[in-house]
Amino acid sequence: MFAPPINRLITEFARLPGIGQRTAQRLAFHVLRLPPEEALGLADAIREVKETVGLCEVCFNLAVGPTCRICEDERRDAEVICVVEEPSDVIPIERTNEYHGRYHVLGGALSPIDGVDPEDLRIAELVSRVESNGTREVVVATNATTTGEATALYIADALRERAPDVSVTRLASGLPVGADLEYADEITLGKAFQGRRAL
Amino acid sequence: MFAPPINRLITEFARLPGIGQRTAQRLAFHVLRLPPEEALGLADAIREVKETVGLCEVCFNLAVGPTCRICEDERRDAEVICVVEEPSDVIPIERTNEYHGRYHVLGGALSPIDGVDPEDLRIAELVSRVESNGTREVVVATNATTTGEATALYIADALRERAPDVSVTRLASGLPVGADLEYADEITLGKAFQGRRAL
Repeated sequence: MFAPPINRLITEFARLPGIGQRTAQRLAFHVLRLPPEEALGLADAIREVKETVGLCEVCFNLAVGPTCRICEDERRDAEVICVVEEPSDVIPIERTNEYHGRYHVLGGALSPIDGVDPEDLRIAELVSRVESNGTREVVVATNATTTGEATALYIADALRERAPDVSVTRLASGLPVGADLEYADEITLGKAFQGRRAL
Repeated sequence: MFAPPINRLITEFARLPGIGQRTAQRLAFHVLRLPPEEALGLADAIREVKETVGLCEVCFNLAVGPTCRICEDERRDAEVICVVEEPSDVIPIERTNEYHGRYHVLGGALSPIDGVDPEDLRIAELVSRVESNGTREVVVATNATTTGEATALYIADALRERAPDVSVTRLASGLPVGADLEYADEITLGKAFQGRRAL
């Protein structure tokens, strides 16, 4: 139906997550209508990000250069490490302004079904980092999903064995702030009971 | 919050229609996770489309080279011209398999509020094309909106004056196929009455 370069652009847009064939077509026609400088802005931004952004050597967060801005920031407590699955998980935690330590990005979560084993994640790197750096606490902030929980338990076991003096904690599970009890699922509500605190 | 190249990519994605800040962020992180070849596929497709796709010299549809595939297709009836607002309007018409003539893309619709005057559209080009080419019929397929209707009337007037022998038609307005009468708006239903046909 379209000329090959247009088809190619539609296919490339449709590969992005959450972008179907129709949206991809709409985006492609939008790009065709744009002045060349503006359209090439997106092309250049993609190229630039792939050329300049890599992973931090220390924590595997995204970094321009060998280490990321958080690992380079002397004001961040180097004795506390928050373990997350993906670089994108760092953002919501930073937004809370509640956390002032460093991070460790695993690169996913354990999932035998999908063939993700401990060696596929940066767990060995975490353990040796904890062993060698005088770490005081490891906050495991993997997702509250089955795979995230399994990963958290695996990490807790590994650290108990190799660095028994380090305190390993997990983010609290419970009712989201503003949630109605009526609409809470029973597993969340059960967790909220288990984790209840004195007032 | 992010490194400058990541911010730039998020900004570029957020400029696309229907992509908000949050989706743009998700897309940027997706691109960061992709292998470089795949990410650059999109960048290259954008670049290629802007370098190779222009407008047809005859009908102003999208074209790789001086004229589009429809204008080059000898089997298409050159004496019938379908007038549309945008290149993307050609696609749904082609999908019907009901139309075998050529096209003329105006590049928008008349809209005094937005400062779109007849000179901003390719109306003069349409008139001289109709005058010089032995055109039999002009099907005005601008959108069924206020601006589309105004554009259709303007074109009909211009052609009546300059090429009085050419028949100028407009796509039928009426109930969409499969629609319930109960849910039709009164303007559409009114048009459906005006345009009723003998059974």
